[in-house]
Amino acid sequence: MKKILFLMLMLLAAVSLYGKPKYVFLFIGDGMAMPQRMVAEDFSRSTGKGCLEINNFPYHGTTRTKSAGDLITDSAAAATAIACGEKTKNGRLGISADGKRKLESVAKVAKRNGKKVGIITSVTINHATPGGFYANRMSRGEYYEIGLDLIASGFDYFGGGAVAKPDDKKSPLYRGNIYTLAQKAGYTVVSDRAGLMALKPGGKVLARGTDGYLPGYIDRKYYPEVPTLADFTAKGIELLDNPNGFFMMVESGAIDLAGHANEAATNLFEVLALDEAVKVALKFAEKHPDETLIVVTGDHETGGMTMGFAGSGYTMHVERLALQKCSLGQFKTFMKNAKKEAEKSGKSFTFDDAKKLLNQYFSFEFSGNSPMRVSGADEELLKSYFQQGKLEVGARIVMSRKAGIGWTSGGHTAMPVSTTSYGAGAKMFTGFYENTDIAKKLKSVL
Amino acid sequence: MKKILFLMLMLLAAVSLYGKPKYVFLFIGDGMAMPQRMVAEDFSRSTGKGCLEINNFPYHGTTRTKSAGDLITDSAAAATAIACGEKTKNGRLGISADGKRKLESVAKVAKRNGKKVGIITSVTINHATPGGFYANRMSRGEYYEIGLDLIASGFDYFGGGAVAKPDDKKSPLYRGNIYTLAQKAGYTVVSDRAGLMALKPGGKVLARGTDGYLPGYIDRKYYPEVPTLADFTAKGIELLDNPNGFFMMVESGAIDLAGHANEAATNLFEVLALDEAVKVALKFAEKHPDETLIVVTGDHETGGMTMGFAGSGYTMHVERLALQKCSLGQFKTFMKNAKKEAEKSGKSFTFDDAKKLLNQYFSFEFSGNSPMRVSGADEELLKSYFQQGKLEVGARIVMSRKAGIGWTSGGHTAMPVSTTSYGAGAKMFTGFYENTDIAKKLKSVL
Repeated sequence: MKKILFLMLMLLAAVSLYGKPKYVFLFIGDGMAMPQRMVAEDFSRSTGKGCLEINNFPYHGTTRTKSAGDLITDSAAAATAIACGEKTKNGRLGISADGKRKLESVAKVAKRNGKKVGIITSVTINHATPGGFYANRMSRGEYYEIGLDLIASGFDYFGGGAVAKPDDKKSPLYRGNIYTLAQKAGYTVVSDRAGLMALKPGGKVLARGTDGYLPGYIDRKYYPEVPTLADFTAKGIELLDNPNGFFMMVESGAIDLAGHANEAATNLFEVLALDEAVKVALKFAEKHPDETLIVVTGDHETGGMTMGFAGSGYTMHVERLALQKCSLGQFKTFMKNAKKEAEKSGKSFTFDDAKKLLNQYFSFEFSGNSPMRVSGADEELLKSYFQQGKLEVGARIVMSRKAGIGWTSGGHTAMPVSTTSYGAGAKMFTGFYENTDIAKKLKSVL
Repeated sequence: MKKILFLMLMLLAAVSLYGKPKYVFLFIGDGMAMPQRMVAEDFSRSTGKGCLEINNFPYHGTTRTKSAGDLITDSAAAATAIACGEKTKNGRLGISADGKRKLESVAKVAKRNGKKVGIITSVTINHATPGGFYANRMSRGEYYEIGLDLIASGFDYFGGGAVAKPDDKKSPLYRGNIYTLAQKAGYTVVSDRAGLMALKPGGKVLARGTDGYLPGYIDRKYYPEVPTLADFTAKGIELLDNPNGFFMMVESGAIDLAGHANEAATNLFEVLALDEAVKVALKFAEKHPDETLIVVTGDHETGGMTMGFAGSGYTMHVERLALQKCSLGQFKTFMKNAKKEAEKSGKSFTFDDAKKLLNQYFSFEFSGNSPMRVSGADEELLKSYFQQGKLEVGARIVMSRKAGIGWTSGGHTAMPVSTTSYGAGAKMFTGFYENTDIAKKLKSVL
């Protein structure tokens, strides 16, 4: 009995070590390192929803994000590293550090080897991170040209946000609207939930859920008609599943934006959006054990986020972030509308009016003894930002303080990211390695 | 040939999965999470010394540090969790969260199972972290009583800093000097390098390298006579090696202090001190492959340290931390001495005099165009702290800015720590788990 068990265990170990997955999912959180994962983790636990799948994966690795020129990478150099396996200079997409060679991404290797390929993101589909998987451009800013590369890739499924600058007539390569060109090249182009849901396998697809980026996950109740990252992932599986397998990259792209803005609640909700998409992949993996690999990584840390700041002592209140009801962007819209309403009735919009909105969307209290009571220096801070027309900045500062979230930067940092993995070949992704090794490891199994 | 290779690989996998180590090393960085490891890592690389061993280990795990009461743990609750496998309230040592049960540490399990046990730290030997492995006290502040527990443990080797409050007559349990009591209980007590080096295997040892804490690793050139953490580790191996194996806990305790002080260079040098001690264990492991497990973890993060701050853009200059020549504590001593010298000759010690010291020990330049040039707001900041008699605070702020290090807190944070592992049974330590699971995993092999 013991011998049989031993042999079974050995086999299991061997498979887990050397299994070649047929289906490969690569999830990327833009601006997601350990702090972002952990704030979302403890938030999720505080709401009774338990551990995040992305953290609960059996293998954890630590990934260094340095670019060719700097300790702190941008998203283009990071995407190039993760997708193609070479460090390049900040700003470049699929081009070597010396600017001379076009690099081949894992997605292209997968395609070349007969797999179907899907590229999904919650930001624009020709943004740096998705672009790293199909484009070869000296600058991430060449949106139109990256759009051309998208079409030329022949990948089977693009989903998520819109194509940025689809009609950029300033481009020296301009030859028409990207969507029109995509249709000419055989892509079915859909622009809303109904179009997405109606798609059936067969043929190439370019599916955008909205103009620009998908709405923040924290704001999804205001935009019920827009598909989420999880919706795009589920549809991707339906469209791509085939006997040769597939490679799918899914990016939660706006974690980064909320990091730049030092906005804790919006940030963690984008991590939750990623986790929901990962759950869809896990469901698929359960039906295809030993054939599916899921890797979750980040491209860099944004914001210098930490869980604790000078005034927090030993307590943290991540659960208070549930009291924020919308993103800063959405709050600005609400403010604008409220101002317009006031002006219509010939009134001026005062700080007292703003306080009502702050109460409604951030649960700030301006009297009483609740933990969300804002007074003294914090109230002064809100007032000062209100007077500067930037109340949302004051709101996010006070909210981070209430929750105990610290930030050191409005930009990226050189902190490593966590890479977690599940399924066939997952073991490769523990240990300490460069972001370029992710591409190398993936290429070894694709 | 392929079959043989496959069988060999399966066996290797099985051994790595289920090997029971005879020799177990647990290294703990107090206040060391991913940021502290990574700053030291990139610093080490910038000096041409390459990757740190603690990061280069094949398995990486993510360890949640929450204590029984709070998201942010103190070192006592963390030590209890790591050593005994139960969450307790901040401040408690080896006592359950309800205050009713004494907990058994991995070190005591090892001892009970016939292994020799060593406890080493660079801070005082009855400090919270080492105490977690042998003491059962309601408060980490009961230094004298923890000292009594140290003696009662009968562990084979204690090394590093001194016993704090060895003669605390205020203790209700006072029964004489701890060192004297230790000698009576059969311990050989040594107090310097010569004493340490002369020790031979056999009998129990209490070895302190100095009064109080070991000097900062960044200051070791000023204290060549004091043994380092690596010296204590090497001697520990010599004393503890025996056919039944051993368990050794080695703490770099002052990473935490430098974290509280937001002092980057001193912080990273304490991580390097830990890495040097780990190298000693690795050398031993090479002689005993398949029998040695090395685990490196931290008890919590301190300082909310990140690699990048508002003003750093995409550049980081960890290499500039090499330009700091001593710890803040040591700098205060140098300042004091310089002031005394000035006063002796009837002069007052001016900011211009201080600038010379700042140049000598922090490489700050007050003219010219070097990257270490300090002017404008930074110079004003130094002057202001000089006038308050706290020049060292200004110096560490400017130094962090020059290097691009951000901090959010003077206390601990709720960030998870990294746990890395090497050798027999190391695979257990990848994944995501609570600090209590470290004790559980260790107990399963001890």
